[in-house]
Amino acid sequence: MHIDAIPTPAAVVDASALSRNLQSMAARLPGSSLRPHVKAHKCTTLAAQQVAHGHRSFTCATPREVIGMITAGVGDDLLLANSVLDVDRLTEVATAAESAGVIARVAVDSVETIEAAHRAGVGDVIIDVDVGMPRCGARPDHAGQLADVARQRGLSVSGVMGYEGHLQMVSDRSEAKERVAEAMSLLRGAHDDVGGDIVSTGGTGTHDLHTIGLDHPTGVTDVQAGSYVMVDTQYATLNQGFEQALTIVGTVIAHHGSRYVIDVGLKALGMDHGDPSIDDCKIWFCSDEHTTFTSSERTFQIGERVHVRPAHVDPTIARHEELWIVDNGEVIDRWPIDLRHW
Amino acid sequence: MHIDAIPTPAAVVDASALSRNLQSMAARLPGSSLRPHVKAHKCTTLAAQQVAHGHRSFTCATPREVIGMITAGVGDDLLLANSVLDVDRLTEVATAAESAGVIARVAVDSVETIEAAHRAGVGDVIIDVDVGMPRCGARPDHAGQLADVARQRGLSVSGVMGYEGHLQMVSDRSEAKERVAEAMSLLRGAHDDVGGDIVSTGGTGTHDLHTIGLDHPTGVTDVQAGSYVMVDTQYATLNQGFEQALTIVGTVIAHHGSRYVIDVGLKALGMDHGDPSIDDCKIWFCSDEHTTFTSSERTFQIGERVHVRPAHVDPTIARHEELWIVDNGEVIDRWPIDLRHW
Repeated sequence: MHIDAIPTPAAVVDASALSRNLQSMAARLPGSSLRPHVKAHKCTTLAAQQVAHGHRSFTCATPREVIGMITAGVGDDLLLANSVLDVDRLTEVATAAESAGVIARVAVDSVETIEAAHRAGVGDVIIDVDVGMPRCGARPDHAGQLADVARQRGLSVSGVMGYEGHLQMVSDRSEAKERVAEAMSLLRGAHDDVGGDIVSTGGTGTHDLHTIGLDHPTGVTDVQAGSYVMVDTQYATLNQGFEQALTIVGTVIAHHGSRYVIDVGLKALGMDHGDPSIDDCKIWFCSDEHTTFTSSERTFQIGERVHVRPAHVDPTIARHEELWIVDNGEVIDRWPIDLRHW
Repeated sequence: MHIDAIPTPAAVVDASALSRNLQSMAARLPGSSLRPHVKAHKCTTLAAQQVAHGHRSFTCATPREVIGMITAGVGDDLLLANSVLDVDRLTEVATAAESAGVIARVAVDSVETIEAAHRAGVGDVIIDVDVGMPRCGARPDHAGQLADVARQRGLSVSGVMGYEGHLQMVSDRSEAKERVAEAMSLLRGAHDDVGGDIVSTGGTGTHDLHTIGLDHPTGVTDVQAGSYVMVDTQYATLNQGFEQALTIVGTVIAHHGSRYVIDVGLKALGMDHGDPSIDDCKIWFCSDEHTTFTSSERTFQIGERVHVRPAHVDPTIARHEELWIVDNGEVIDRWPIDLRHW
C-alpha cells in the first residue's frame, strides 16, 4: 500500500527516521541507563522496538499504560511515574504485575499516595522528589520521612525520582547543564535519606546532560526520555541529532483563491504548543477538522497528500488510533496506539 | 454511584443543565429548523436526546459521524457538511444510508468533490458556499455552475449551505446581526442559482440571528448549531442563556506548598482556545496528565474532586471514551462517545 492510499488524517511514522532515533539513543544511553517513557507514543509495538534496542525498564504516566505494557509482555521493570490515589486502578497494576512476574514500581509523594499504594497491594514504591518543576514531588528534605512511612507500611522503597521538566527547553546548553547538576544535587541529597538502588530522572531535552552512575556526585541510574522517538517541532529546536519521525498526513480537500484546506484539524493534533507546521507554507488557522494554509513557494492539487508536523507529539498521538509505518513511501506496518486513556 | 466514585479524569455532564439547554434550543429553533451538529458531542445517545426534543435532521463533520448515526438509527436526514474526497468512505456512507432508508446528503464545493460523490454512489449533494469564512466553500458566483456539473453527473442537488464561522464570536450583537444578514444575502444569491429546498447555515453563536423561512430575503431553512448542548468557557461569554453542562472532573493528587495538582491534563482537554478554568482558582499550567493551580479563595484536600471547565468543548470531548451523566451528584448514566475519529 502506498502512502497516498492511507485514509486521512493519519499518524504516519517514517520507519527509517524512527530506526535512526532508536539506534542513536541506544548508543548514547544503552540498556538500563534509559528508562523510555511510553507516554510519548502510547504504543506497545513501539515499546517492543525499544526492548529490541536493549531497554527493558520503562516509565509510564497512567495505570492504563502500565497494565497495557504488562498485558503486551513488553518490559520487565515498569515505573508508574505519577501520583495515583485510585486504589482500584493501582490494584489492577499490582495484580497484573504479580501474575506476569514483572516489577511495577509506583511513585509516591505524600502519605496519601503511600496509603493508596499500600491498600492496593503495590510492592515497591519510589519517592518522587520536587527538583524545581512545580508539579508533583515531595520537598527534598521530606523524602526520607516519606520513605520511613512507606517502609512502616511494609512497602519496599527502591529509590527516588525527580523530573527536571522546567529545564528540558533551556537552549543555552552550558546553563542547562549547570542547572541540571543543581537539580540532581537535590535529588541525590534526597536519595541519601531514602536509600534504594534507583535515582531516575530526565527527559529528551536533558538526556545528554546527565552522568550515569551513582559514584558521580550528581549521577543518576536512568533517564526517562520519551520524545526522542518521534521529536516534535519544539524538541527539534534543540538540535540533538534526532529526527522528526512523525507527521500527520492530510489530504488537500479544498483550494479556493490562494488558500488550501486539508482534513487535519484540532481533533487530530495536540494544540497546546500552538499551530503545527507544513514545510514552505504559512498556517492560517486550525479548526476542528481542517487546517487552512497558503504558500508562496509551493502549489498543491486537490487530493494531494500533505505532511503536517505537530508542535507537540505526545498529545497528538493520543488523539489517533494507530500509527502507519512507512518506508520509502510504502506502508510496511500498522501499530495500534493501545495505551491511550486512563 | 456518587460522582466522587468516578475514575478520573472523566467527562461529566450535568443532566439538568443538559436538559435545560436541549429544551431551550428546541423552543427557539423547533423541529427541522435546527439541524444539530453532532461534532460537538460525537455521541449517538445524546443525538437521540435531540431527536426526543423534535430534531430529526443532523449535521456531521466526518464520514464516521454519518455512518455511526445511521448504524445507531438516530436521525433520518443527515448532512455531511464537509468536503470529502475519500471515495471508499463516501461509498460506506451511501451504502449505509441506502440500506437504512436514511437521507445522507454530502456537501461539495469543487468538481473534484462532486466527482468523488458521484463515484461513491452518493445520491444527494448540497453546494457548500463561501460566505466569508476562509475555509471550504465555493465562491457564491460559482455555486450555480457546480450545481450544473453535479446534475450532469446524475446527482440530485438539494440546496446550499454556508457556514459563517467568522461571525460566531462577534460580541456586539447588532453588528453580528447585520453581518450575518450580509452573509445570508450571499448564500441566498447562490441558492437562486442552485435551487433546491435547503439553505443551511449557522452555529450556536449566531443561532438567534437567523430568520427561518425562505420567504424572508435572508431567511434560511435550518441552523447547524452544536455547541449549545454543552457550552464551553468561550461560548459562555456570549450569554445566550445556555449553561456549561460539561466539566472534566479530576482528583487532587498532590498538594505541595501553595500549589495543587489534579490528574486532568493536555490529553484530557482541547487546548486550542487556551487553558481551562477552575472556579476561584488560578491555573498555572497544564502538562500531559496534570493541571497545576493555586487558589487564594479555596482550599482542597488530597483526593478531592475538582471540576475543570474546558475552553473548547468539541476537541475536549473527542479525547474521551464516554460521558458520565450526573444528576444531583449521582451518576445516572454513561454514554459512549462513539462517533470519534474519522
